[in-house]
Amino acid sequence: MPTSSPMPDISIPQARRIVVDTTGAQIVQEESPATRDSRGIYLPHYIEPVSHIAIDIGGSLAKVVYFTRSNLPISTTPPQSGHSSPFLPPSESVFIPPLASNGASASSSRHNASPSLNPHSHAPFDHSPPQRHPTLNGALTPGVLSEDYRNQASSSTATIRSYASTLSNNRGSFSTSHPGKYKRSDSLPPPLPGGLLNFARFETDNINDLIKFLQDLINRSAAVNRVSLEKMQKNVKVMATGGGAHMYYDLLRKELKVEVKREEEMECLILGLGFITRVPEEVFWFSEELVYKVSHTNSASTERETPPAEKLTIPPSELPRPSPTPPAYQVTFADANSTDSVPNFPCLIVNIGSGVSIVKVDEDGSFERVSGTSLGGGTLWGLLSLLTDAENFDEMLLLSEQGDNSAVDMLVGDIYGSDYSKIGLKSSTIASSFGKVFRKGKAKKSFKQEDIARSLLYAISNNIGHVAYMNAAKYGLDKVFFGGCFIRGHAATISTLSYAIRFWSKGTMRACFLRHEGFLGAIGAWIKNVEPDNQLQGESEVIQSDINGKLEE
Amino acid sequence: MPTSSPMPDISIPQARRIVVDTTGAQIVQEESPATRDSRGIYLPHYIEPVSHIAIDIGGSLAKVVYFTRSNLPISTTPPQSGHSSPFLPPSESVFIPPLASNGASASSSRHNASPSLNPHSHAPFDHSPPQRHPTLNGALTPGVLSEDYRNQASSSTATIRSYASTLSNNRGSFSTSHPGKYKRSDSLPPPLPGGLLNFARFETDNINDLIKFLQDLINRSAAVNRVSLEKMQKNVKVMATGGGAHMYYDLLRKELKVEVKREEEMECLILGLGFITRVPEEVFWFSEELVYKVSHTNSASTERETPPAEKLTIPPSELPRPSPTPPAYQVTFADANSTDSVPNFPCLIVNIGSGVSIVKVDEDGSFERVSGTSLGGGTLWGLLSLLTDAENFDEMLLLSEQGDNSAVDMLVGDIYGSDYSKIGLKSSTIASSFGKVFRKGKAKKSFKQEDIARSLLYAISNNIGHVAYMNAAKYGLDKVFFGGCFIRGHAATISTLSYAIRFWSKGTMRACFLRHEGFLGAIGAWIKNVEPDNQLQGESEVIQSDINGKLEE
Repeated sequence: MPTSSPMPDISIPQARRIVVDTTGAQIVQEESPATRDSRGIYLPHYIEPVSHIAIDIGGSLAKVVYFTRSNLPISTTPPQSGHSSPFLPPSESVFIPPLASNGASASSSRHNASPSLNPHSHAPFDHSPPQRHPTLNGALTPGVLSEDYRNQASSSTATIRSYASTLSNNRGSFSTSHPGKYKRSDSLPPPLPGGLLNFARFETDNINDLIKFLQDLINRSAAVNRVSLEKMQKNVKVMATGGGAHMYYDLLRKELKVEVKREEEMECLILGLGFITRVPEEVFWFSEELVYKVSHTNSASTERETPPAEKLTIPPSELPRPSPTPPAYQVTFADANSTDSVPNFPCLIVNIGSGVSIVKVDEDGSFERVSGTSLGGGTLWGLLSLLTDAENFDEMLLLSEQGDNSAVDMLVGDIYGSDYSKIGLKSSTIASSFGKVFRKGKAKKSFKQEDIARSLLYAISNNIGHVAYMNAAKYGLDKVFFGGCFIRGHAATISTLSYAIRFWSKGTMRACFLRHEGFLGAIGAWIKNVEPDNQLQGESEVIQSDINGKLEE
Repeated sequence: MPTSSPMPDISIPQARRIVVDTTGAQIVQEESPATRDSRGIYLPHYIEPVSHIAIDIGGSLAKVVYFTRSNLPISTTPPQSGHSSPFLPPSESVFIPPLASNGASASSSRHNASPSLNPHSHAPFDHSPPQRHPTLNGALTPGVLSEDYRNQASSSTATIRSYASTLSNNRGSFSTSHPGKYKRSDSLPPPLPGGLLNFARFETDNINDLIKFLQDLINRSAAVNRVSLEKMQKNVKVMATGGGAHMYYDLLRKELKVEVKREEEMECLILGLGFITRVPEEVFWFSEELVYKVSHTNSASTERETPPAEKLTIPPSELPRPSPTPPAYQVTFADANSTDSVPNFPCLIVNIGSGVSIVKVDEDGSFERVSGTSLGGGTLWGLLSLLTDAENFDEMLLLSEQGDNSAVDMLVGDIYGSDYSKIGLKSSTIASSFGKVFRKGKAKKSFKQEDIARSLLYAISNNIGHVAYMNAAKYGLDKVFFGGCFIRGHAATISTLSYAIRFWSKGTMRACFLRHEGFLGAIGAWIKNVEPDNQLQGESEVIQSDINGKLEE
């Protein structure tokens, strides 16, 4: 019988008992911009007794979170060079202790990439090109299936209470004590300590791809654990949240033949937020200087009143360690470890998916969906899919980076002429988004796709920032988290949202961002069902969720 | 020397001294949807000593207000049949006492159209097709140029204090005592009592059209008054507001050779609002029943949960008189005459032009621009000009009337499936505007222009309503006026804005609309300089105006 352990503690009053060592990196290296927000999180002391797969099926995207373990040792890899995008946040955090093949990497600590792991696997270094669709490499390894579980459970904390405090301490010992120790044999070797929290994403329209992925995961896990599929299915639970939890409930049960629990969407969002903000280097924000720099990097911009700013470069290799006063021109990470750190609740969470939900979170974690807007990611992507040749989100964002919105937006300067200074307005202030398009009476070809993309990105982002600000002000909140799959680490978007919040609040509020921004709901669904023992939580069929809707009755 | 009279009184405490008789109609008949919001207002007791032309030059449109008088009698005309649009507000108000050629019209009072006057002229009935560009027919007739001015000034109140109270009383006497009395002769016949406040609109891009129009007006007025152009120019003042007042100041002075005064934009907006709301049948709103009916009139709509509503028809000929409990299925006009009428201030005024300005007005008429959004009329028209074949605003609105937004919008029902009722949401709630477009991955031709137009109209209107609500709530206001050239009497737009305000406020706030919605600034600029004597107000060069901008520094 597995030893029962205390439930993981999420609530604020006990938060300080969670030791989070920021030198112990958690987030795996970025494979590509496409997987930027899907990097795994290594949890060195966590063992699932029962494997949970959490899915959050939204209007456009289905997000998956699952925990895998591996029996195979990890070897090092020379750092991957040349991140394709200068955008943030970069992360070369080493998350697995490097073996000694590359002397440099062991000492250059977290900031030079060493083992590049496929974010969805525990396999030894994987040089295959980044996959557009998540590959399946890891295996669910519920503790209940392991002969050694009892022993391991007692030696580990078996909770999520400490993430990496011993990791760095063990780094040396790990590399010397483990190589070659585990060989494939008929008996299962003990799994490595802890495991990897994996993230994957599918288009809701291609729900069958998701189903197949999960089927493969379960099948493979049965094989790895050398149990029958039936037995595996009994020890896997799917927690489903989001609107699709209702829409696809029957399909999931039928196709996966596992227990499927529906979880309330907003509750999962808040739980996920509370959890993920404890992971080092998860939460970050832009300083005002950085916002300024980012907004002036487009050399095509026709800012009339400010001199051209130096081109923004934030070389990924130069990410400084978090410090009490981080450099203003780099991303600032929340210091999750400091005793001075400001608690994350109360706050406003703005989840930007196809549409936008705005949820107020009180200090004790209770929450209420207070607002929303239908002008969200789906709106922008829909418009740009008709107005540009871009075929996916990242292409659209790339287009916008090269655009000059003043070619399509009506600015204050366009209306007032050169006298704008007399009235105390910036000539570059956008008076009317897309306001130049109709006036000119020109054919569509007269406007560059890049300019259209930038204008609409600003329009949607500014509006979200504005509505977010108004709600934060209404409830006296000074911290606004932005979640959802819209931002994708895109600097101009982050900058626009940051600026809107700072401007309207006159600097009293802060916009905070998350590196696993799109997975809050899925993480929350996963967290909600984490139990070190075999106790199953009561079925929670009461679904009180809202979605990213505009109006509710 | 003209007799000096007290300045017109706009402030609330004295408002009740202004007698506004709602049975005395003021707004001239609608010529066409294109001129719906440009109908003249007859002011029977007003005589300008100095002719003012007020212009409000915005980002897209330049609005003109000027006052003309006529020496010619008015004759009746059979009512124009078949208004091309069922949309509101219709107006067949008779504003000139009918002569006896049509027995029916005299007794059927205001509601059956009789004289159809070109809204920009005082000429006898004009059956010419509605002009897209304003025609010039009336003449500026400053009282100072008239030999008879002194006599007329003493016999009229010469202020704007009473609009039409005596009009209906005099109706009979006018028609019997005047016909044929005035003949063209070498001496100028005395002008008819009062005059017409005219409204005209130009595209700011075609500023030269505006210049020419004003030049013609001044030239013609000199001829009519039989004075030299130079003398005329000395007695004409142009009050200019809006951003273009700065941009085109020099051009106006050079081309028109008249005094040009620049007036602050927001101040003019508020003054104009305070004035125009005293004109009978100027202010109106939609009841909840009417909102419901309008939103369900599109037979292509795929409302899943509500039964098809009867098709909405509001026959123009059936406009009822205002009453304490107006019918719920018709437009409700504010009763400007009642002693119980709620004062218009304090309120929020949301001016929707190319962009949107949101101004808080206190009880005493003091104001502050508190917010705005760059997602305004310019945004919608710009997007629709690229995404549809429509070539002007009215075509775009017509397209939207035939559209079904559920083909392009992602609704709650699309995300949750059939279980939406369990979570207390309407399946027809828009979760993501345009949210279906990108998902389908289809080519542009797969989406109907009508559906695109309706979706974007809703998106922009809903957002404006939402932001307006939040600001009204912030300042404890329960009345929201919508101004600007965006609405154009379009029922779906009015309905959407009304619904947003009512919904978010849970019925505590009301959205109010204006029939001369686009001319508030110009009216205010005109009002601001109304002086019955020759005293010129001090030059007000302090321009503290904002424009429809999003952010200010």
